[in-house]
Amino acid sequence: MRPENGHQARLLRLLRDGGPQSRAELGEAVELSKSKVAIELDRLAELGFVETAGLAASRGGRRSHVVALAGSLRFVGIDIGATSIDVAITDGELRLLSRVSAPADVREGPNTVLDQVLDLVGKARADGAAPEVHGVGVGVPGPVSQRDGAPVVPPIMPGWNHFPVRDTLGAALGAPVMVDNDVNIMALGELHAGTARSVRDLLFVKIGTGIGCGIVVGGEVYRGVTGCAGDIGHIQVDDTGASSPVCTCGNAGCLEAWFGGAALARDAEAAARSGRSVWLAERLQQRLAEGSGPLTAADVGVAAETGDPVAVGLIRDGGHRLGQVLASLVSFFNPGLVVIGGGVAGLGHQLLAEVRSVVYRRSLPLATGNLPIVLSELGGTAGVIGAARLVSDSVLSTA
Amino acid sequence: MRPENGHQARLLRLLRDGGPQSRAELGEAVELSKSKVAIELDRLAELGFVETAGLAASRGGRRSHVVALAGSLRFVGIDIGATSIDVAITDGELRLLSRVSAPADVREGPNTVLDQVLDLVGKARADGAAPEVHGVGVGVPGPVSQRDGAPVVPPIMPGWNHFPVRDTLGAALGAPVMVDNDVNIMALGELHAGTARSVRDLLFVKIGTGIGCGIVVGGEVYRGVTGCAGDIGHIQVDDTGASSPVCTCGNAGCLEAWFGGAALARDAEAAARSGRSVWLAERLQQRLAEGSGPLTAADVGVAAETGDPVAVGLIRDGGHRLGQVLASLVSFFNPGLVVIGGGVAGLGHQLLAEVRSVVYRRSLPLATGNLPIVLSELGGTAGVIGAARLVSDSVLSTA
Repeated sequence: MRPENGHQARLLRLLRDGGPQSRAELGEAVELSKSKVAIELDRLAELGFVETAGLAASRGGRRSHVVALAGSLRFVGIDIGATSIDVAITDGELRLLSRVSAPADVREGPNTVLDQVLDLVGKARADGAAPEVHGVGVGVPGPVSQRDGAPVVPPIMPGWNHFPVRDTLGAALGAPVMVDNDVNIMALGELHAGTARSVRDLLFVKIGTGIGCGIVVGGEVYRGVTGCAGDIGHIQVDDTGASSPVCTCGNAGCLEAWFGGAALARDAEAAARSGRSVWLAERLQQRLAEGSGPLTAADVGVAAETGDPVAVGLIRDGGHRLGQVLASLVSFFNPGLVVIGGGVAGLGHQLLAEVRSVVYRRSLPLATGNLPIVLSELGGTAGVIGAARLVSDSVLSTA
Repeated sequence: MRPENGHQARLLRLLRDGGPQSRAELGEAVELSKSKVAIELDRLAELGFVETAGLAASRGGRRSHVVALAGSLRFVGIDIGATSIDVAITDGELRLLSRVSAPADVREGPNTVLDQVLDLVGKARADGAAPEVHGVGVGVPGPVSQRDGAPVVPPIMPGWNHFPVRDTLGAALGAPVMVDNDVNIMALGELHAGTARSVRDLLFVKIGTGIGCGIVVGGEVYRGVTGCAGDIGHIQVDDTGASSPVCTCGNAGCLEAWFGGAALARDAEAAARSGRSVWLAERLQQRLAEGSGPLTAADVGVAAETGDPVAVGLIRDGGHRLGQVLASLVSFFNPGLVVIGGGVAGLGHQLLAEVRSVVYRRSLPLATGNLPIVLSELGGTAGVIGAARLVSDSVLSTA
């Protein structure tokens, strides 16, 4: 089902983003006469998109009917990460109704991983949360061709190149599917439900295993001409030669090679093995004894919280380099908000302090005057909410 | 005069950008029925926007009337630089009908400079090129508030802060006026008449006394939340400390402090005085003898053309640093085209070679695969054409 014209599409988005509203309020927002709005809303009710939700409080004249998105509307948001899958069911307003997660390894290829995805979708729907599904949004950790609904040469997703993720899931779930890069869907999640709700131009920086940036221009995700805009993990930070770490991309000194989750884990391991950090050395012993694998970026966060100076130094150095990159991007893009999210963002306020210090010093005052730089408040849900938003944008439009 | 609805506005822009077209072609482009298009075009003719220009070649049926923008439509494009003013009169399709220039010093303040501007507009109109003016576009070398039509804290324009440029020129010329940053209007000029005609997402890099970047997203100039997007001159290139030149902004190592026209002139002077470059030393002697002022960036260009190794080295070093910044921006923005213009772009192909070498090596292959990096072909006319385009976008719209 689809709205039949632009007015209907606008009405549906207003209801999605603003919740139940009176016919009068909706009419004012879309600048249509009372009778025209009534016609479009009646048609949307016939199509099953909206329903009447009682009478509004009086505004002086006759009380207006309150309209809401149909209570039966369901979207599925899927966030496929490098090492985990998150699945959520939302209602039409993209509120979470159920959510399930599982560890996964994206390197096992699309057949294995999409089977896991379908299994999780089944679990999320098991309690009757979504008898029918009206759209499915999917985020994957790599570049995506919007046209094909498939990853394109994704560096950390062996076997996924040009795999028809959209068509495969669409056939299995019998609903429209939209696929995008994980950072873009997180930016959309922030735009819909996070700090960014009222902002139209913003940057969402994800620091996970790698580092990427979602760019929102005029309330829409900007993807660039080949869909790889926001790939800031491979911006070179230092050009000092020999001491720069070599990146998975083959160049040296990329931001991600200094400060992605993988880089932090590498530096933590080195600090533990050399004994420079007693805390990390003990944690490593413990992990080895438990067989729980090598140190991770999260260990650095815990160490820093306990005041371990080596861990604090790693976060400050990384934050400084991230700040250098962001200072350039703020001068270039002049955003209204910068949100930092992803696993490594759990490093918290020491990271934020360092990033802010560099950006506010290095970017032009005109660009930073009213620029908030904040940590994401959505945590793990930005991805699934954003994925649901992605497909709802499509389902609630005419084209 | 204004178009009365969105269809009329779209028809006018099609005629501006595509030249005379048959009613049938226009109808297909705006997806309106024959009769609807005829009604809108008749109304536009009544308003004085369009005129009939004969019959189109037969496409099998009855021959369709060719429609063109009214031959009497006139826009004025004004490009106020740091040291010169350019003024042009264009027709509705933004073709140059007359053009005049004069040296000027923007530091003399708005009253003096705008008097010069009005004088030049008078000269440009003197031959009867524009009995009536339908819109005036203005570029200034500093940040501009679109809302106020005035510069905002422009660093190199003392006395211009919040000066009502739009309202002053509007009152004097009796036509709608739009004001923008000079780099943005040059980007618009490229979009209208340059290499960028078919591109929707692009970067226009101006290297003049300072360095700035015009950002085009989806065929429109992106200005950022406070209107200062594209200020790449103050992106820090090296963080190596003591050896970095101090910038006019107070920070050290800004791109502009390394490679703007002022920086190049400074380095040329040093190379001449130390005798490192015999060619530049002779040029300096000559200039002193003539009383023609200190060495300029243009001297470096001439020296490089004659093969002076110091001058070639200056251009290569500068191109390398510009390339580092552009490599980051290409990874971030994934544009379809990068155009380099402005006075220092006259340094030509040695500069271009160095920039390309760094960008193609440092940005991701997915972002650079089909990315042309070219020198502007419009030269000095990008600014005035873009200024005319700026105001025509406004005059040919409903709002």
